[in-house]
Amino acid sequence: MRLELLTIGTELLLGHTVDTNSAELGRSLAGAGVQVVRRSTVPDEPEAIRAAADEALRRTRAVLTTGGLGPTADDITKRVIADLFSRPMVYHPEIWESLVERFARFGRVPSEKNRGQAEVPDGATILPNRWGTAPGLWLEGAPGLAILLPGVPSEMRGLLQHEVLPRLVERAGGRVVRSRVLRTTGVPESSLAEAVGEVEQGIAPLSLAYLPGVFGVDLRITAWGLPPEEAEERLAGALELLRSRAGRWIYADDEVDLAAVVLVRARERGLRLATAESCTGGGVGRRLTAIPGSSEVYLGGVIAYDNRAKTELLGVDPSVFNREGAVSEAVARQMAEEVVRRLHADLGVAVTGIAGPGGGSEEKPVGLVHFAIAGRGGTTAWQQVFPGSREEVRARAEQAGLSGLLGRILGMQ
Amino acid sequence: MRLELLTIGTELLLGHTVDTNSAELGRSLAGAGVQVVRRSTVPDEPEAIRAAADEALRRTRAVLTTGGLGPTADDITKRVIADLFSRPMVYHPEIWESLVERFARFGRVPSEKNRGQAEVPDGATILPNRWGTAPGLWLEGAPGLAILLPGVPSEMRGLLQHEVLPRLVERAGGRVVRSRVLRTTGVPESSLAEAVGEVEQGIAPLSLAYLPGVFGVDLRITAWGLPPEEAEERLAGALELLRSRAGRWIYADDEVDLAAVVLVRARERGLRLATAESCTGGGVGRRLTAIPGSSEVYLGGVIAYDNRAKTELLGVDPSVFNREGAVSEAVARQMAEEVVRRLHADLGVAVTGIAGPGGGSEEKPVGLVHFAIAGRGGTTAWQQVFPGSREEVRARAEQAGLSGLLGRILGMQ
Repeated sequence: MRLELLTIGTELLLGHTVDTNSAELGRSLAGAGVQVVRRSTVPDEPEAIRAAADEALRRTRAVLTTGGLGPTADDITKRVIADLFSRPMVYHPEIWESLVERFARFGRVPSEKNRGQAEVPDGATILPNRWGTAPGLWLEGAPGLAILLPGVPSEMRGLLQHEVLPRLVERAGGRVVRSRVLRTTGVPESSLAEAVGEVEQGIAPLSLAYLPGVFGVDLRITAWGLPPEEAEERLAGALELLRSRAGRWIYADDEVDLAAVVLVRARERGLRLATAESCTGGGVGRRLTAIPGSSEVYLGGVIAYDNRAKTELLGVDPSVFNREGAVSEAVARQMAEEVVRRLHADLGVAVTGIAGPGGGSEEKPVGLVHFAIAGRGGTTAWQQVFPGSREEVRARAEQAGLSGLLGRILGMQ
Repeated sequence: MRLELLTIGTELLLGHTVDTNSAELGRSLAGAGVQVVRRSTVPDEPEAIRAAADEALRRTRAVLTTGGLGPTADDITKRVIADLFSRPMVYHPEIWESLVERFARFGRVPSEKNRGQAEVPDGATILPNRWGTAPGLWLEGAPGLAILLPGVPSEMRGLLQHEVLPRLVERAGGRVVRSRVLRTTGVPESSLAEAVGEVEQGIAPLSLAYLPGVFGVDLRITAWGLPPEEAEERLAGALELLRSRAGRWIYADDEVDLAAVVLVRARERGLRLATAESCTGGGVGRRLTAIPGSSEVYLGGVIAYDNRAKTELLGVDPSVFNREGAVSEAVARQMAEEVVRRLHADLGVAVTGIAGPGGGSEEKPVGLVHFAIAGRGGTTAWQQVFPGSREEVRARAEQAGLSGLLGRILGMQ
């Protein structure tokens, strides 16, 4: 089954509200076997809503709208849709009564402004809204199917899960959209694509998308409108093919953070970890501690941002700053070794670099980061140059530090 | 001037990616006086892109697309648009050369797959992309105006600000949409609204919106379609009115992070800062160091996540854990005092709490966080209980720690 989304709201177009409803709708509908073929956003204006709903119904014969069902003046979706379906509006006293009751629970009385909420297009199924005041509506007729939901995220979610998805799954009849992700890091999109090669034919009818981001490139494989078992079987085959070609860069087959993978692998081996960060300023620690249960593995560490902190908290010899600079292999090594020693950790990672925008030189450009890992098995060090803004250099450095740590952990039995 | 947005990506429809580009585009374009009248999202399929771009151009005569300019097989926007404008694709050796150069900086060579990036529709203005590999394109012709930007947010943003907005402002002439934000923290939306009172009449035709988030409530005042000077004058008056009513909670009159305000105020007073974090795991340090130039003020600190780290790195007496627990005023005080002492800092903030989901008890529930600030002027401590998920508790704790630090700094002459 195919469907279009129509989200209504001037504030969405102005960008004052990020449209999180659409992402949630996309995921939930795909899981139920409904393919969203287009999404449109229009302002709270009857003509704009009418034109967009009309086009969507003509193109796809099914539209789901969010927004424009509440009591205020810009709530007009319901009337526009009634008009497109040539249905009169009908007053439902039971909607009004449940509204009065809901208001009474908070010690209030609905105003006459709310009375319009009890009017719905003739023939529409009323989807009861336990999370707010305006019910959802399900309307079928000559133009196709229209599903109207409120724009408030919690109300949209409640109606979607309890009223809309069950009805849609029934209509879709067994077919689903399923997808899997393989996460890679440390390889640019073009090199990854070369290693993977022309697999599109081999995995058809599944599709493959490359999703580059600051932490690496995700590979997403999607099965469209297949019976559930066939989808799972084909996905498993495609994952195996991709793993055989790009396995060396893959760190997860799910949308988890690299920090979570590091924690799982370290816990398996009974390792305790520590961090010593300069340019990332605590970002590696923050990502590790974002995972519930991280305290079993992660001890803590030092944010050695200023040289004074490198010396006072990690005993880095001040003469090294003069000789080698704070961004150097020598400093990274001392930081990693010292944090491991002070915390009695099994492994520690150190990150020191130039995040920019200032502070770069010809010899040591913005984006240069030195890493070291110390602990069981000795100390190793490496350097990388990352592109992008200060924020991106820091994010890439976090990721590379965690990736180095994971490599070291995986090498230990 | 009116324009439609067309965002391209199967991922967006599947909801695997939240479309943050659209919100940013909406805000920036409104600020430049350009009205976004519709936004559409289509999958990475030539027919879908073609149909949507064609409709947008027919309706509005101007479309801005994001996505579909990179090197992989699903990157097709450019060719579809060339076709709609009846333009052949032309190879530009200078694009290829700048690509080779960019790759060389990171010690790499572009693959043959990248060569297609050097082809652009005949007659298109090339918008140089200093943030990534694929240039933006500006194409005018019989169907109207098409602006093509990459989908990667940092690249989109760079091209928008430096190449697209200046060109659009020139075309728009005269009226603008301008808005200002006052950021508050430490006050719930309802109390803030009570303090502000009924100002809507007083500030008309400007609008006021309350935007609650995990870091506090932002107040957004917007002037719609006014000449630039009138907009600025009215905004200044509205800001003054709001400041007089809610000034005690306002920490910024711009969309800056609280950490940046802390750094500015500390620098004015010549103070050096340190952090000692348990439940935030480095998040406070990360926010401070996200600001360029933070090294002048922020020395660094300790991520004392495990008790071992509290003892080994900060000398917290192990008997205190037994007596008071790791989440206690006594531990917060010791952490703050010790990080100040070890780093010879002027002020230090400590954060220790229960972020959840596990670890709570009746006496010490999930969300309980103890704070202390030590240094010049002695040690002060307080505790708060925050609602929400682990991520929210941590974010709120970061914000409250920074807010406490700011209050202390502002009290120093």
